[in-house]
Amino acid sequence: MHLPTLSDIQSAHKKIKPFIHRTPVLTSQQLNKIFSCELFFKCENFQRVGAFKFRGATNAVLSLSEKEKKNGVVTHSSGNHAAALSLAAGMNGVKAYIVMPETAPSVKKNAVAGYGAEITFCKPTLQSREDTTRLIMGKTGATLVHPYDNYNVICGQGTAAIELLEECNDLDIIVAPIGGGGLMSGTATAVKGTDGRILVIGAEPLNANDAYISFTTGKLTPSVNPLTIADGLLTSLSELTFSIITKSVDRIITAREDSIIECMLLVWERMKIIIEPSSATVLAVIRENPDFFRGKKTGLIITGGNVDFRKLPF
Amino acid sequence: MHLPTLSDIQSAHKKIKPFIHRTPVLTSQQLNKIFSCELFFKCENFQRVGAFKFRGATNAVLSLSEKEKKNGVVTHSSGNHAAALSLAAGMNGVKAYIVMPETAPSVKKNAVAGYGAEITFCKPTLQSREDTTRLIMGKTGATLVHPYDNYNVICGQGTAAIELLEECNDLDIIVAPIGGGGLMSGTATAVKGTDGRILVIGAEPLNANDAYISFTTGKLTPSVNPLTIADGLLTSLSELTFSIITKSVDRIITAREDSIIECMLLVWERMKIIIEPSSATVLAVIRENPDFFRGKKTGLIITGGNVDFRKLPF
Repeated sequence: MHLPTLSDIQSAHKKIKPFIHRTPVLTSQQLNKIFSCELFFKCENFQRVGAFKFRGATNAVLSLSEKEKKNGVVTHSSGNHAAALSLAAGMNGVKAYIVMPETAPSVKKNAVAGYGAEITFCKPTLQSREDTTRLIMGKTGATLVHPYDNYNVICGQGTAAIELLEECNDLDIIVAPIGGGGLMSGTATAVKGTDGRILVIGAEPLNANDAYISFTTGKLTPSVNPLTIADGLLTSLSELTFSIITKSVDRIITAREDSIIECMLLVWERMKIIIEPSSATVLAVIRENPDFFRGKKTGLIITGGNVDFRKLPF
Repeated sequence: MHLPTLSDIQSAHKKIKPFIHRTPVLTSQQLNKIFSCELFFKCENFQRVGAFKFRGATNAVLSLSEKEKKNGVVTHSSGNHAAALSLAAGMNGVKAYIVMPETAPSVKKNAVAGYGAEITFCKPTLQSREDTTRLIMGKTGATLVHPYDNYNVICGQGTAAIELLEECNDLDIIVAPIGGGGLMSGTATAVKGTDGRILVIGAEPLNANDAYISFTTGKLTPSVNPLTIADGLLTSLSELTFSIITKSVDRIITAREDSIIECMLLVWERMKIIIEPSSATVLAVIRENPDFFRGKKTGLIITGGNVDFRKLPF
């Protein structure tokens, strides 16, 4: 299996730069005090569509051949990847087909439709999603852009770490959340390629700990019906992301639901920025392991800020 | 009555600069599109204690004589001014006495206590607050730092506009919210002193429109039991702020509660930053008057980001 390299991620960065926002790296003296370490938040909640997913989606779209561009792209997702692919495709004159469970919240349906994508609804099962996607591929010739099991997507996601390292060149640790492992794979590849001494930590909800189990047992083990407030981290690793993570991640640490919620509230209250529960998972890992992180310069990938304000956990 | 000048505000800025955060001026292509104008958000929600009030409080503390510093400062407030004065005093080795209604939310009590201030509780009436404050002044010799009816506080608040103008030198309009008028007075003085052609607009909740009535009738008319979600704007103008506003503000425009709530949600959703309802009032004024603002480069003072997340209006 061909794994991405730092140079692939650097090429992706050069390609997507004109389309993405250069998001800020924020700090908070209050949070540094609370957690007894120096935190550097790479704020992808300020990325287009409110999530890092726009990086990977843009790289995937820009990596299509001219012929592929004519046939469009397709994915099944109700979350940030759907919005990201819709916008990335739209900005480049490429048609996007999005398969969504009919149960998806209307705010997400509206966002995707607003970016000009064509939505096809399916039953809320993996089987129905995959069948519907294959149907569209057969009919249109569209290229599947998987949310994370995709080489170009992984390279795009790694560009957030490139920017973080450009601004903070003396980090001890970088923590990113793990869902399907796309961001984690890109981050680990970028960081280890740049400086092998920086520890790369994956943060995962205890209630969706397939990556933790796969990583510690050495055997890819998908989650069965995971339930966590970190709704961006419900997915399981693929063969590709598992390979990269096994090779380049130093440790995976899980976080409890109460920590995730508390850390989300803490960031809202102290930093006055909106982060989604998946992003709070990285801080929750630090909160639960104070000895490990004490005094360390720690970079955190804040993945996004798309939250349903009518369903808050506090 | 001696009114502040641009030069007073510039001096205040020089004095408080080492203590305050230089807050960012943010923009949003999405909001520009929605409102058909170019918006520049001066984000005082990222100021220390989460509000512009830290500017005025710091200037007041730094303007004390050495003897006054020894006796401390006192104010009655349950809101951002109390936290701001507590921190500004603490950072400068000055004792702060804060009079608070016993009904104040515990999060606000804790914040003030956390900054090292001494809290005295009173009944939730103006009479009780003023009596308790006088009692403390008599006992300790502390200097009263009124939240807005104070020359040095007004000069401090005006420094946010100075920074906004430094970064955006071709604005057509600047909008700030009006409560007691401290921020509005400082803003108007700074803006008109710098460039008389920039329109200065005050934004006020329709449900607490004492400044609008006072401004349009020419007669200072305090609110009676105003009720608005913009809890930072419940206070009424003083003689001092009324004089400055009459002289330097071009227009006061009111906003409905539903607009304020909608604009707060809009900023949270699109910009991923937390602003309090008082700050949303400036955007609500733009929302309700599209013809007036269309195509204009408009600066908005975003006053703060202190919100009780357990009592959201949506």
